[in-house]
Amino acid sequence: MGENDDSNIIEHHVEEEMEKSRSASPRCASPRSSTQSSHRLLAYSDALISIIATVMILPVAHTKVEDSEELRQSVQLLLTTKIAVYLMTFVIVTVAWAAHIRLFQVIVRIDDCLALLNLACMMLITFLPYTFSLMATFPENILGILLFCGCVMVMGIIQSVIVMYAFSRPFLLSEQIQISENRTYYKRHILKVIMRVPVMCFFASIFSFIFFQLSYVLLAVVIFLPYMSQCLKWCRSKAIGQVEETPDSMMFYSYLPNEPLSKERVEAFSDGVYAIVATLLILDICEDNVPDPAVVEKQFGGSLIAALQEYGPEYLAYFGSFATVGLLWFVHHSLFLQVTKATRFMGLMNTFSLAFVGGLPLAYQLTHEFPRNSRNELEAIQISCVIIFFAGIFQLAIWVVALYSERETLHPYVWYGGREHVLMLAKLSLYPCVALGTFFLTCILTKFSASIFHLMEITVPVAFLVLRLLVRVGLALLRLIFCPDRRDLRTMVEEEGDETSVSFNAVVT
Amino acid sequence: MGENDDSNIIEHHVEEEMEKSRSASPRCASPRSSTQSSHRLLAYSDALISIIATVMILPVAHTKVEDSEELRQSVQLLLTTKIAVYLMTFVIVTVAWAAHIRLFQVIVRIDDCLALLNLACMMLITFLPYTFSLMATFPENILGILLFCGCVMVMGIIQSVIVMYAFSRPFLLSEQIQISENRTYYKRHILKVIMRVPVMCFFASIFSFIFFQLSYVLLAVVIFLPYMSQCLKWCRSKAIGQVEETPDSMMFYSYLPNEPLSKERVEAFSDGVYAIVATLLILDICEDNVPDPAVVEKQFGGSLIAALQEYGPEYLAYFGSFATVGLLWFVHHSLFLQVTKATRFMGLMNTFSLAFVGGLPLAYQLTHEFPRNSRNELEAIQISCVIIFFAGIFQLAIWVVALYSERETLHPYVWYGGREHVLMLAKLSLYPCVALGTFFLTCILTKFSASIFHLMEITVPVAFLVLRLLVRVGLALLRLIFCPDRRDLRTMVEEEGDETSVSFNAVVT
Repeated sequence: MGENDDSNIIEHHVEEEMEKSRSASPRCASPRSSTQSSHRLLAYSDALISIIATVMILPVAHTKVEDSEELRQSVQLLLTTKIAVYLMTFVIVTVAWAAHIRLFQVIVRIDDCLALLNLACMMLITFLPYTFSLMATFPENILGILLFCGCVMVMGIIQSVIVMYAFSRPFLLSEQIQISENRTYYKRHILKVIMRVPVMCFFASIFSFIFFQLSYVLLAVVIFLPYMSQCLKWCRSKAIGQVEETPDSMMFYSYLPNEPLSKERVEAFSDGVYAIVATLLILDICEDNVPDPAVVEKQFGGSLIAALQEYGPEYLAYFGSFATVGLLWFVHHSLFLQVTKATRFMGLMNTFSLAFVGGLPLAYQLTHEFPRNSRNELEAIQISCVIIFFAGIFQLAIWVVALYSERETLHPYVWYGGREHVLMLAKLSLYPCVALGTFFLTCILTKFSASIFHLMEITVPVAFLVLRLLVRVGLALLRLIFCPDRRDLRTMVEEEGDETSVSFNAVVT
Repeated sequence: MGENDDSNIIEHHVEEEMEKSRSASPRCASPRSSTQSSHRLLAYSDALISIIATVMILPVAHTKVEDSEELRQSVQLLLTTKIAVYLMTFVIVTVAWAAHIRLFQVIVRIDDCLALLNLACMMLITFLPYTFSLMATFPENILGILLFCGCVMVMGIIQSVIVMYAFSRPFLLSEQIQISENRTYYKRHILKVIMRVPVMCFFASIFSFIFFQLSYVLLAVVIFLPYMSQCLKWCRSKAIGQVEETPDSMMFYSYLPNEPLSKERVEAFSDGVYAIVATLLILDICEDNVPDPAVVEKQFGGSLIAALQEYGPEYLAYFGSFATVGLLWFVHHSLFLQVTKATRFMGLMNTFSLAFVGGLPLAYQLTHEFPRNSRNELEAIQISCVIIFFAGIFQLAIWVVALYSERETLHPYVWYGGREHVLMLAKLSLYPCVALGTFFLTCILTKFSASIFHLMEITVPVAFLVLRLLVRVGLALLRLIFCPDRRDLRTMVEEEGDETSVSFNAVVT
């Protein structure tokens, strides 16, 4: 931490000195300490956005599912609506977050004015879930879509103001743009990219008066356009070989083509999601599972322990959910330690993984709501397994995608065939495998589904500890047998590692 | 960001190289990439702890306050209980967080095993609020206190295991301890400090069987002992002059005496609290303020806009709360930009400020719950003013405390008399002043209290923008009048600034 602080301070001072030597304006007018590193603003924005993205799972979890067949239909409809709101919120908030990353890759320092403008932007983002709730509850009414478009348009205007402000004070911009000669070209280009979505929303809001289904389609296209175009490009490049990228097409979705998603911000956003998901259940437990003193007196003869035993499954659900989320975070953490650069596609896989992680508290809450051995309980357990499976499999997908271009995205010692590669793969595949196994076991042994599920919950944390030992023992055995051969390989990898460390030093100094 | 990443990587490589040259164990056995920077683990822990500390305000906010006199008594009792739970949780979770900071100032690198142990510790911390709920609901029953003591004892054991594990792999420890000769002394000392609280809890749990009031007292003493002893020390030093600090007394509560609270972690924790508080209200709005389609059809003739107009005050409350929290974050952010080192007392002031910030959503929710011009509405508005006032005044207190030892804790350009000093003071005093003004205005003009409050909400964000301009205009005028004199002063300050930047460089390289 200390080193980090110091490096920030140094950076600040260096920046100031550069400013001093560069700026043509008289010393009196140039703001001295009002220019700030944007680090904390971005951390706060990440925290806000991740909470907003995830918190919409709570209305889903709070929907009471009755065990009777009559009510089921209407409850299922309500549940579907709420899940749709959750997923829409998650995806769109993530898209807004990606836009925020791009913007603050161009603007690397902030001042008070930018901080306030960014807060206004955040306020509008946190209001988006409400517009989705309205859309989902009243799909025929255009008010929801109008509100959404209004929010997006105002956000576009605020972001344009941010860009114009930053370009009027070039010392706020990133080095690359600061020293470039065609700064006005950059400015116009960035404004064009930013205003694309609000203009489309403007048309969508006009269309909504004529034929509102069309405006939903329009919005969906606007939001997924970057991903779709990238998917198409990728497929094309796989089918007919590498296509020469024109700088224009590269510049269309990112301002700085050689800058991928900021790895640090992907980590901060993921941390926020994992943290809020891990704590959602304790909130419910504190609110609902403290028995009423009168009830304890009457029904349990004043014995608090007897009253609390009623809630046993809920505690188990809490610990199970916390452990699962914590361990998924642990896998994510291990994975991103080996990643040096997050590509856009890796970001997309990460988003999918996080969306499933967000569903975990819901799944765990469902598992204890139904009577033992009912059909609903089996379904709930199987849903949990499916959610865990997908959360894990998308984490594995990040790894697979990273391996495709391992020279750019991964540290040398986890490249394919490296020593740590095996351990990483084992960590990543543990949850998908276990979830899949549990799913099929519950299909066969339906009677013991709850016991199997709880056994899984308890064994997986142990498995993570044993996994390390197992892989270590395995590697030690291999080392004993193949030691002369492997030593050559290892020293080779070490040399490579030293080379990269040197080149990193060279880049910074 | 990029520079940060690189510096982490360099650090990692440097560490590895140091490890290579230092470690006596054969290369085969020393784990290569399994040693990790603890940065992200700490960020995740901060996020978890800040959410847990704040989220207990939700049960308070969800208590429905009826406007009738009969129910009031029982509701007030319930509210007091819940507020007590919130404050207790906040304080104790913050104490646990401070212990966590101290622990990870000693252990600066982690591996998988430490990460998993830390997650187990986090799980126990998130369970603490539930034990408080039990204590508050059943003050006569010892189960709550037993559960709490159990959690703390298990946490103590886990932390001891963490310490023992880390001391068995010295490359995980901080430089200072790594190179020190009496490492075993450090280890024993740290274990002693860690086990102090669990041992006290053990006695408290035994006492609870005999005379349970005593165990509450014992717990309170254990928790506030560090602060009380520090307060006493401070008072004594003010009264009879500076006392020579023995290294033992310094070492009693922190392992590394010259290392204050980590500024980065204080920021991360505060960000988490501000972020969760800012978003708490949108959650309620999305859950409660989407009208039922049937009701809209029946009562409002299918007009969604008419139905939504009912909720007008709630939206206002949301935007007011978000803006207030956002601006308080902004002030906090500006303040901590100028801070170079956070002392323990500053951390305490920060905790108090955050505890009041956590109460904001509750206050704002109260303001729209009562009919216009009722006595309750006036009370709710005044409570809001008081909460904002205290949140702001404790921020100001951080600044005042920092000024006491400005040479250690603040950047040179905000030292007393510096140019930025005025702006900082203006920023910090804006909210307390406005809140105080609003409070007294509502006392006099009780009829217009709601209008005054809403006017305040709208003007404060504008005031922050104008504040900057005002201070700038004021400084420009001063500059025009006193320019020759001030230039001397400024160049002097600049020189000082350059000196410190040089010394910072020297410290790092």
